[in-house]
This record gives sequence, structure tokens and C-alpha cells, in this order.
Amino acid sequence: MDRLRVSFSALRADAHLVSHLPNIQYLCGFTGSAAILLIEPHRSTLFTDSRYTFQAKEEVADAGVQIAKKGLVRAVGLALRRRRGRTRVVYAPGQVSVAQKEALVRQAGRKVRWIDGGSMVEKLRAVKDSQELATMREAAQLISAVFQALTPRIKVGASELELAAEIDYAIKLKGAAGPSFETIVASGERSAWAHARPSPKLLGKNELVVLDQGAILRGYCSDMTRTVFLGRAPENVRKMYQGVLEAQAAAKAAIRPGVTAGAVDRAARRVLRGYSLDRQFTHSTGHGLGLEVHEMPRLGQREKTVLEEGMVLTVEPGVYVEGVGGIRIEDDVFVTASGVEDLTTAPRELLEL
Amino acid sequence: MDRLRVSFSALRADAHLVSHLPNIQYLCGFTGSAAILLIEPHRSTLFTDSRYTFQAKEEVADAGVQIAKKGLVRAVGLALRRRRGRTRVVYAPGQVSVAQKEALVRQAGRKVRWIDGGSMVEKLRAVKDSQELATMREAAQLISAVFQALTPRIKVGASELELAAEIDYAIKLKGAAGPSFETIVASGERSAWAHARPSPKLLGKNELVVLDQGAILRGYCSDMTRTVFLGRAPENVRKMYQGVLEAQAAAKAAIRPGVTAGAVDRAARRVLRGYSLDRQFTHSTGHGLGLEVHEMPRLGQREKTVLEEGMVLTVEPGVYVEGVGGIRIEDDVFVTASGVEDLTTAPRELLEL
Repeated sequence: MDRLRVSFSALRADAHLVSHLPNIQYLCGFTGSAAILLIEPHRSTLFTDSRYTFQAKEEVADAGVQIAKKGLVRAVGLALRRRRGRTRVVYAPGQVSVAQKEALVRQAGRKVRWIDGGSMVEKLRAVKDSQELATMREAAQLISAVFQALTPRIKVGASELELAAEIDYAIKLKGAAGPSFETIVASGERSAWAHARPSPKLLGKNELVVLDQGAILRGYCSDMTRTVFLGRAPENVRKMYQGVLEAQAAAKAAIRPGVTAGAVDRAARRVLRGYSLDRQFTHSTGHGLGLEVHEMPRLGQREKTVLEEGMVLTVEPGVYVEGVGGIRIEDDVFVTASGVEDLTTAPRELLEL
Repeated sequence: MDRLRVSFSALRADAHLVSHLPNIQYLCGFTGSAAILLIEPHRSTLFTDSRYTFQAKEEVADAGVQIAKKGLVRAVGLALRRRRGRTRVVYAPGQVSVAQKEALVRQAGRKVRWIDGGSMVEKLRAVKDSQELATMREAAQLISAVFQALTPRIKVGASELELAAEIDYAIKLKGAAGPSFETIVASGERSAWAHARPSPKLLGKNELVVLDQGAILRGYCSDMTRTVFLGRAPENVRKMYQGVLEAQAAAKAAIRPGVTAGAVDRAARRVLRGYSLDRQFTHSTGHGLGLEVHEMPRLGQREKTVLEEGMVLTVEPGVYVEGVGGIRIEDDVFVTASGVEDLTTAPRELLEL
């Protein structure tokens, strides 16, 4: 597979050890839950365990498959030990535990030198090709459609858990493998928790409800948040909503190739400062999206990553006020040659239900 | 909280760094997705990020909460640096990445000695208290009820994905937070993949269907597999099923305090050898279950862990034959003072639908 060669040719090394599962999926297609991929100049080998014997054969075309009977790390270490002469092995220190590394060093022996390869595969993954983009567009449309179909169910007396269950069910009936993260339905005071889990709490009158949901379609994630008000929103809530919506628009307007991730975050933050809500904006403006729901780059205040055409990002400013609740509006966007294109299609105006 | 003190008193150390989220949840109650817990003799501190400010306050009673603005690892490292004199810090090398460890060492400085604490918290977690057991019994009953309610839907023409979606929906409607892992519905040849993901494939006549599902109820997992046949099962399938069922019964009969995990696995394997199916039994007999769907101990062939009263285990022999399909039967059991008690209540006989 092309990606295996591309990922390898950028490195000055004799072998590249890949242990992060989404990276393995990206490089060779394997979707199982236990694997290490070892890329060498003239061959690549996927190490997995006996549960995946058939699946690996079916999914992996461009690498050999080795079923490790006594542990993946041990099998990979021994494969490295069998190589002749000195071997420079690139790996990702953030994706290998201290214990795994010790076992690898023990098995592979002294001829192997371990080199920090940084986030090389993640950087490749950040820029999507046209097939990935098409899938992600579909995943974003799918979650938009799920939200719109379920909007009538967001009403006083429904429980957070029940609504989350209906969202997840609808995601799967529309052909996605499932939610791309634990669906959030957080109402009233709980909406002020940026990452609340749905609870048995019933939705109440005059409450804000934050719904954060996404789907995994053919491996690729979407991620979308909408906030609704149950009743007629009071002035302070309207103003908060308006601030978040403008902050999101400002962030999107700042996105284009060549701009830093930090500049996008600061554009959103600047708008919220005008509303005296910048201190209530307690997370970053967004993140890359793809095989994982959080990928490179992060749209954080001080991030220097330069945006490139082909990246897919979330743009999701949010403010959380104790006693009032939270408001977050999140879309998935694609970085074009000159700016940005929305992948998420659900309307963004305040819904009073 | 008592668990914090228990976990600490067993160690000869000045501090205990806990980074694995289920361990953190067990020790202090926090359920967020980013945290490090630092236990010291006279205080404990949960480090998390600003997304969890409110949630941490609500969930964590017996530890202080510190919101780390520039990264968890950095904040923990600095807290360690500020301690007077030499500090012996116990940590789990299997749960800290090489990169995190390097950052911790850099921040904490040379006064800190890092000590491998092994799987200390996991060992505590393996033995459940009466409240945990009550929750797990309920979680096992819940998934049994879901399976029985949905059995009429397992029929020719239904898709694997659709069935999996219905299972997940039912899990949530019954009050669980969600499935404890990605629900498996694998039919026909795909049933021979021990860990197949549900696909758009439609269930066909005369096919085996493996359904593996579990629920998370108040943090605790259940895990249950049933295999059905669509039509009248031929003799070879009946015999396979009988072998797996007897292997499961033999494994359960072998379980009691004082027995090794390996002895339980070998009891199942011995039965399948009698059916000439031992080579098709490609995984271990089971695993511990609790806050995580895979916990200590593993019921593998050579495992020397001694079983104790209070452990909750899965017992799940399975055989996978290319061209025929797979059969797995899995229950959750509780290790009593003298043997074993089934938590799973769904019947185990071959269902021909």
C-alpha cells in the first residue's frame, strides 16, 4: 500500500514500529484491537493475536501477517533481534508504555537503536485525501440528519439517557458503525459541564440542553454540538448564544492554509471577550478529526501548527456559566485552498423548543 | 475515601502516581477522561483539566482537585518537585508512556526515585465488595434481559448492524450508560471471526450467529455471548455446540478460591480436546470483569494467578471453524467461598430460530 511506503521513506531508519491502532488502520487497513505494525524497507509485517487470524487475512493486503502466540511486544522484539547488523528503529514514545519499551529493548537486544519518530503518521493523517474527505462529508451529513430527525424528541420530561440512546440508535440505523464518542446530552446545570455524561435526569422547562454527538462511518468520525433552550430563552441566554455563534463564525473566517491553529483559537476568544465571556470559554476552539475523534492539529491558543489544505477540523467554542448552564456550537469544516467549507449541515440558530 | 488509604498503605513509598482512568475512578470516584491522581500520606490530589472543573468538584470527595492549565504531566511533575527531600514515587510502567515518563522525570527533578508498583490497584479491583457485586449482578441480569427480549428479532433478513443497534438501544433504555464494548453480531462465515464488528451483512438461512454484548451499569460491566442457529442445526453444528457448552460447564466446575486461573482454562480445553476442537479454541477461557470489561485475572492456559472469593469472571470458551462458523457461550460468574455462582441469567441451550 502506498501509505506504508510514504510513511517509511520520510524516515532515515531501518525499521518503523507503529503501535497506535488508528495509525495501523491508516497504514495497512487492519481494524482489530491488538496489533503492532513493523515497516521495513522491503517488507512490512502486522503482528496480531489469534483472535484476528481471519480478520487480518481479509483486511491486510500489503503487509505480511504474523500471529503472535506469546505477546505482541515479544514477537516484534524477536523479529528485530533476528535482523543482521545495527538497526535504527523509529517509534513514537507517546504511544509505547514504559513497560513495553523495556520489554522491546530486552527482546531486541543491543544492536537496536530506538529513535523518536515524533508524530509522523499523525501528520500524514491530518491532511485527508479526496476519498477520506468524501467519507467525512457523508459522516457529517449523517449526524446532522440524525440531530434534525430527533429534534422533536428534545422536550420537557425526556431523560438525558433516553435521548442519548435514541441518537445512538439513529446513528446506527443510518449505516454508521456507531457513535464516535459517548454521546453527550446535558441539561440544566449539567449543561455547564463541558463533558458531562448523559444521566437519568429529565429535561426541565427553561433549561439549556447541550447535545454533542458524532458518528463513525467507514472508520471516519464526525462530531457536532448543538445547544437548545426548552422554552423562551431569557435575554442573558440569548446574548450568550449570540456570543458563541459569532465566535464560531470568526474562527471559521480565520481558517485558511498558512494560518496557525492558534490564530483561529484567538479569533474565537476575541469575540467572546467582547461579550465578557472569554473566561467562561474553558477549552480550545477545536481539533482535527478523522479516524480518531481528536487528531492533529489542536486549535489551542498557543498552537503554532500551520493549517493546510485538506485538513478537517471541528470549530466548537463554548461557554459554561455556573447557575445558568452551558452553550456550545460545533461544526466540522474542511480547509480548502482559500478558506473553509462546512461539512456539518444542521442549522446553527438558537432553537427554542 | 477508604480505598485511597488502603491502596497507599500497601506501598513503601512517599507518593503513588495513578494514571489509568479506571483505577482513578475506583480510588476517588472521578469519571472524566483526563486525570492523574497523586496519593500522598496525608493528602491526595486529582489533577484534571478545565473541562472537568465542575464535574470533579461533584464527583471527588476525598481528594483535592487541581485544574492543570499547562498539561497534567507537567502539573504533577511540578507538584513532586516542590516536595522536600527525596521522594520515592510508585507508578505503573504499563500505564505511563515513554514520553510521559520523560516529561515527569524532567519536571520532577533528580530527588524523585521512580518505583515500579506493579498492578497494585488492579489487584485490589479484582476482588469485589458487596456493593460492587450487587451492581454487577444487576448489569448481568440487564444484558440477559436485553438478549431475551430481542431474540425474536434475530432472523433471516435482519442485518448485523441493525441488530447491534437494537441491542445497544435496549441496553440504554434499561438504564445502563451504554454497551461495555462494541456489540458483536457476526453471522455465517463472519461468526468464525472471534472479534468481528457488525457489518451491513444480512443474516442468512442455516447460518450461525454469534452475539456478544454487555452493559455498563453505574460504572460496572457485564459481558455475555450467545450463539444461535437460523434454521435446524445440522449434526456437526450440534456437536460443536455441545462441546462448547460442556467446556463451559467444566470451566465453571473448576472455579473456586485457591485454584489457579490456568487450571480453569485447562478444564475447558480438556473437554474440547475430547471433541477434537481444542485447536479451534483460539483464545483464553475468560477474564476478570468490573470497571473494565477486561480486568485481572486472565483465565489463560498458563496463568498462575490464584482465584479468590469475590472475583467476577467471564467464562467463554469458543470454537471457530473456517467454512462452518463460530460458536461461543459466555457467562459472568462470581467466585463464592466454595465455588461459583452464575450472574448471567439467559439460558444457554442451543436456540434454533
